[in-house]
Amino acid sequence: MNPEPFLQLDRIIHEKGRLAIMSALAASPELSFTELRDTLEMTDGNLNTHIRILQEGGFISVAKSYQNNRSLTTCSLTKAGRKAFTDYINLLEQIVRQHKA
Amino acid sequence: MNPEPFLQLDRIIHEKGRLAIMSALAASPELSFTELRDTLEMTDGNLNTHIRILQEGGFISVAKSYQNNRSLTTCSLTKAGRKAFTDYINLLEQIVRQHKA
Repeated sequence: MNPEPFLQLDRIIHEKGRLAIMSALAASPELSFTELRDTLEMTDGNLNTHIRILQEGGFISVAKSYQNNRSLTTCSLTKAGRKAFTDYINLLEQIVRQHKA
Repeated sequence: MNPEPFLQLDRIIHEKGRLAIMSALAASPELSFTELRDTLEMTDGNLNTHIRILQEGGFISVAKSYQNNRSLTTCSLTKAGRKAFTDYINLLEQIVRQHKA
């Protein structure tokens, strides 16, 4: 057994809520807070916490604007976030392959 | 994006240290505490904690015996653990496939 892929999994991305957020953002140029919350079935508080941690880690950027008098928060992957997510998915693929061979 | 695989990931197995332990045990009938510790580069304390959580979750069984006057602890997957790990790996495969299509 090769322990390397496990040791290399990024701790910030690996948490399952954040993994779902990164995965959703990897498939779209950007998503609003509401879209993320409804797609991922998260509470506002949970999503807020995960977004802050991903932002502090440099994985996503968050833009706030106003639309029809309501605040609109949109999230997107940073370049570093996209790279880190691709690396993460490649590690998952190695782990899966160890057990599907 | 399909959020189902993320929502279904087992929280006990998903922690990366425990994932590595489950993965090692899935590839061997049983492994000693020392083999696991050395393969996975964990401290005794860390490994002990993860083993206890996996045992309490019903995923692994732990046997203690004596060999040459020294205690020997061996771990193996339970039937439920093997099933849960297979399900987990299938979910990872779905997640990887969403990003490799």
